[in-house]
Amino acid sequence: MSAERELSRAASKKSWLEAANDPASDFPIQNLPFGIFSDKRNAARRVGVAIGDAIVDLAALAAAGQLALPAGGAQHFSQPVLNGFIALGREAWRSVRLHLSTLLDAACATLRDDAQLRSRVLVAQADATLHLPLDIPGYTDFYSSKEHATNVGAMFRDPSKALLPNWSEMPIGYNGRASSVVASGTPIRRPMGQLLPPGAARPVFGACRKLDIELETAFVIGRGNALGEPIACSDAEDHIFGMVLLNDWSARDIQQWEYVPLGPFNAKSFATTISPWIVTLDALEPFRVAQPVQDPPPLAYLRHTGAHAFDISLEARLTPHRADRPVSPSPTTTITRTNFKQLYWTMAQQLAHHTVSGCNTRVGDLMGSGTISGATPDSFGSLLELTWNGARPVVLASGGTRGFLEDGDELTLTGWCQGEGYRVGFGTCTGMILPARG
Amino acid sequence: MSAERELSRAASKKSWLEAANDPASDFPIQNLPFGIFSDKRNAARRVGVAIGDAIVDLAALAAAGQLALPAGGAQHFSQPVLNGFIALGREAWRSVRLHLSTLLDAACATLRDDAQLRSRVLVAQADATLHLPLDIPGYTDFYSSKEHATNVGAMFRDPSKALLPNWSEMPIGYNGRASSVVASGTPIRRPMGQLLPPGAARPVFGACRKLDIELETAFVIGRGNALGEPIACSDAEDHIFGMVLLNDWSARDIQQWEYVPLGPFNAKSFATTISPWIVTLDALEPFRVAQPVQDPPPLAYLRHTGAHAFDISLEARLTPHRADRPVSPSPTTTITRTNFKQLYWTMAQQLAHHTVSGCNTRVGDLMGSGTISGATPDSFGSLLELTWNGARPVVLASGGTRGFLEDGDELTLTGWCQGEGYRVGFGTCTGMILPARG
Repeated sequence: MSAERELSRAASKKSWLEAANDPASDFPIQNLPFGIFSDKRNAARRVGVAIGDAIVDLAALAAAGQLALPAGGAQHFSQPVLNGFIALGREAWRSVRLHLSTLLDAACATLRDDAQLRSRVLVAQADATLHLPLDIPGYTDFYSSKEHATNVGAMFRDPSKALLPNWSEMPIGYNGRASSVVASGTPIRRPMGQLLPPGAARPVFGACRKLDIELETAFVIGRGNALGEPIACSDAEDHIFGMVLLNDWSARDIQQWEYVPLGPFNAKSFATTISPWIVTLDALEPFRVAQPVQDPPPLAYLRHTGAHAFDISLEARLTPHRADRPVSPSPTTTITRTNFKQLYWTMAQQLAHHTVSGCNTRVGDLMGSGTISGATPDSFGSLLELTWNGARPVVLASGGTRGFLEDGDELTLTGWCQGEGYRVGFGTCTGMILPARG
Repeated sequence: MSAERELSRAASKKSWLEAANDPASDFPIQNLPFGIFSDKRNAARRVGVAIGDAIVDLAALAAAGQLALPAGGAQHFSQPVLNGFIALGREAWRSVRLHLSTLLDAACATLRDDAQLRSRVLVAQADATLHLPLDIPGYTDFYSSKEHATNVGAMFRDPSKALLPNWSEMPIGYNGRASSVVASGTPIRRPMGQLLPPGAARPVFGACRKLDIELETAFVIGRGNALGEPIACSDAEDHIFGMVLLNDWSARDIQQWEYVPLGPFNAKSFATTISPWIVTLDALEPFRVAQPVQDPPPLAYLRHTGAHAFDISLEARLTPHRADRPVSPSPTTTITRTNFKQLYWTMAQQLAHHTVSGCNTRVGDLMGSGTISGATPDSFGSLLELTWNGARPVVLASGGTRGFLEDGDELTLTGWCQGEGYRVGFGTCTGMILPARG
């Protein structure tokens, strides 16, 4: 049976692990995302798969003889990053996923009825620490939401020519800073930098005053390409391992002063947060939908047939914490609701464009979508847009307002695909703002 | 004796290896740059140091008991990249350099008089292959030549406001693509991409027609910094291992169409060439000179006292090859002569600015200077400037002219510091243009 058929059949599947059958769980048996975790019993970072409120320890499962891969591949389950496992290739990912899908199935007794085995291979998510799942050789961020590019162009350049002519012809992107990609939960220090006060002749040095989020997703390269050998648009999805949520923290005041002519640099290099679980393209397959109509029709190297978007609901929540009482948060406000499927350029087009010059990619490379903004003001993917550069502050459930982020604000991105009676979720991508070092 | 004093005394030093005493050699006993090589007898990549026309095999030297490092450090001499050795820290680099300086000294018999030992630890450069010396976790390129930024601004934007206001306030930089940094000698495939013909409403897809070089140097991070912990300008040089030559190959037509608003992407991601030998800051120390006066005086975080430029002569040579007869080159033309010391922003300022937001750096990170252009038209660091965007073609010694690079053109960068009777050189940074894949 092909993996696709297996997935289709799996829509009605249940697990013997009851928490996985909760329709609100991000991690039903239909998902099975990969991550890197450690726990109190074992501080070693290793490969896990999320299921309900638990994690399957793949290193332990392999050690127990219940999971095998050819040619010593199982050794990669004991590594502190996923790169080695991912480099084994798509057949290996699918083989492991299919095997786990069987072992976790309500109808399969192997793990279900073996309490001792279960205690060795299952770890409660509540007892685990999730880590950055990848060594990221390269991080690229695209700019593929038409609504976002239009909003930013209207604010920072000319409202009558908000969208630049090149935007409709190619997935515009830039190289980000891979070193500062951090795991969800890492606190975010408000950056210092150069700011140009309105009307001032010279900049001042100080703490960012316009600290922002960018609600994004990212895909992870599962198979690289050699220098000089572009990836065709029609082949591009075969090079993708899976997707994560990404928060491209942005210092708008630093950005506005520095970004002409070479693009954002210090405004975005202080931190980028990704969610810890990588949801495979196989798990997303049932949620494939058509991308928006592209007008003008793209140049030939950016053309593909069929549907290449995915219906992924996305939200950003803001929870203010008092700096002196971080365990006592104020109520949470959902500041935006949007969807990945609205992106103008597809992941396949992004990757085809990225490599058409001959640029090589490597396993573990991270490719951000760019801020995902919808058409309506409540679906914009950044505070810059939601508040129109601070002019229309967001009203919080806790009673205050926000133009941009304040110290103690915790931002959480969530995302999920809604199935019938289940959802394939991404978990959370979160970070709290710490005061500037000053 | 301190390493600095040793270096000063070393100015009159000679080696028993006669080729190292040739005043035209890039690799006298005063230099001792680190690289990664393999040879016919041993295909394993390992650490070497250049001396005259030879390479000292540090792995073999350690195996012979003639070179030691504490705590198993010598194992890094057998690694295929320098990162492990560099991560040992400055005292280790200095210790190895000082020890080699002794072993190679004309007055030292240990190697000089032991033919068998010499045959084990010395490899002729002519018999060796030099490799990319680093695993490069991050590649940043700055834009620190005032003359270059002014020339580009005059051509692409407004000649009356050629230099943008932020340029004089900070070392403008952008994140480059680390995956496509290649070793000197790697052929360069002319990239394909989107080009906007003059007056056209829409771009076409085709081979780059304005392929260019950028004559640069780069420094290599020897000690990283943690996320959120900036490197002070006064400490920055302690974080630098050494320098290389860098050719930032650029597709000007792709660049001009794509670069607004997020900066260069496909125009520069197809290849970046670096020279194979990393010249340490210790070797460059005798050539330290004052940087240009900075007006306006930089903000406090960008201030340092003393001299922070280095007197490094730089040249670019163009040698056309007939595609069907690549072994029979036409005469070589030196197309530009410039000097690193003219750069407006220093390496220390570049690194302080890069990290002031909290951005972390890692051992092996590569930081390009940006194109190094002098004040006179014969000292510009790119064909874009030398030919004023093709309008004033360079006349070649072989009789033809060049606006931009043609297939079969071989570009070679060289650089050296001139001492009294010796020079500390960088070797060559070279690449030949292959036709586009089409």
